[in-house]
Amino acid sequence: MGQPAVVLLSGGLDSSTVLAIAHDQGFECHAMSFRYGQRHVVELESAARVATAANVEEHVVVDIDLRAFGGSALTSDLDVPKHDSVADLNDEIPVTYVPARNTIFLSFAVAWAEVLEASDIFIGVNALDYSGYPDCRPEFIAAFQMMANLATKVGVEGSTSLESHTPLIDLAKAEIIQRGVNLGVDYGLTTSCYDPDEAGAACGRCDSCLLRRRGFDDAAVVDPTNYQLRVA
Amino acid sequence: MGQPAVVLLSGGLDSSTVLAIAHDQGFECHAMSFRYGQRHVVELESAARVATAANVEEHVVVDIDLRAFGGSALTSDLDVPKHDSVADLNDEIPVTYVPARNTIFLSFAVAWAEVLEASDIFIGVNALDYSGYPDCRPEFIAAFQMMANLATKVGVEGSTSLESHTPLIDLAKAEIIQRGVNLGVDYGLTTSCYDPDEAGAACGRCDSCLLRRRGFDDAAVVDPTNYQLRVA
Repeated sequence: MGQPAVVLLSGGLDSSTVLAIAHDQGFECHAMSFRYGQRHVVELESAARVATAANVEEHVVVDIDLRAFGGSALTSDLDVPKHDSVADLNDEIPVTYVPARNTIFLSFAVAWAEVLEASDIFIGVNALDYSGYPDCRPEFIAAFQMMANLATKVGVEGSTSLESHTPLIDLAKAEIIQRGVNLGVDYGLTTSCYDPDEAGAACGRCDSCLLRRRGFDDAAVVDPTNYQLRVA
Repeated sequence: MGQPAVVLLSGGLDSSTVLAIAHDQGFECHAMSFRYGQRHVVELESAARVATAANVEEHVVVDIDLRAFGGSALTSDLDVPKHDSVADLNDEIPVTYVPARNTIFLSFAVAWAEVLEASDIFIGVNALDYSGYPDCRPEFIAAFQMMANLATKVGVEGSTSLESHTPLIDLAKAEIIQRGVNLGVDYGLTTSCYDPDEAGAACGRCDSCLLRRRGFDDAAVVDPTNYQLRVA
């Protein structure tokens, strides 16, 4: 059995690929998901399926209530924006941005890593197809890692240090998908949509769906997603 | 009304003093507490009393479950260490340390600040009487602030930046108490004990009680705390 690692797992395409990468690198994977008031809570069912398929050591779902603050279409009644194509996405920070979400998720990962005496954390942030979220940038991850090493016992006792792994940071969505397919990821288990219907079918037109669809297209891989509308 | 600020409020001596300082500086105070599985949950009643007395704009209690990880006497069945005097405290990180707690609390404060469009966060960390917790050190706070400014919209849009205020960082406990008394803080409303009895009376012998008792002693202020044992 390898060294323990905490892997943040949303149940989406990116984090499911990251889990496969961590596993392939020989880590004993401890997967962590969050029930944070997201309207697309169906992603947690995907996370559980993906965790099981990847044969993780452990999968925890942490309850935190980000709705207490509001401020995002993902945790409130604001409409999730829909578009006809990727070309309609712009560079502004979208209303689906959840304030400080990755900071909060990574903080919990640091706490769990400290308890597990793990030195490695994996997160599927991506600086290319990242929907304009500030907390997906490489400079954020570097600053977080520096902070985390000062926040914890390892920073005091100095024997080891925490490392935040971001294996997808420089990859295009199509490259991520190709990587995952090579590692045997079943993307039919994953969920990306911000606004699925009650049966869990993806809308096909939110930022996340559009980036996913283009990724499969570019990778020339059949998209196994169940979309509400079969758009050409 | 002043600028909005998020003030982390545990209900203890330090954070209650910080709230008074933020209020005195003219900030519109939004107080934030956490129900995190702490055995001394009575501190939340103190937090509510202190928030009301300080006439805050708003007080939220966020539910997060740090017990999911274990690893601390404050959130598990481990015994809270007791001592006869402050001289018995040592420099090691104690079992009452909660992994990454301040990192997690500050992350939530950043999220709320972003929603409130607040640029200021107050936290009562203290580098002197800090019980040996790594996430109370000035270098941790500096690194956190750098990270937070990269994590959030302000870091992208660049118009303002987040500032983490730590007005107690260099003060001895006695100086904190003198400061608070001058600002009218009623320390009878606050709770410091890690292991209070069911009626909320302080044990008088955990690290936190010992530091508090010595603080009142050194400040020559009458300690209004209800201790289980009236020790000389």
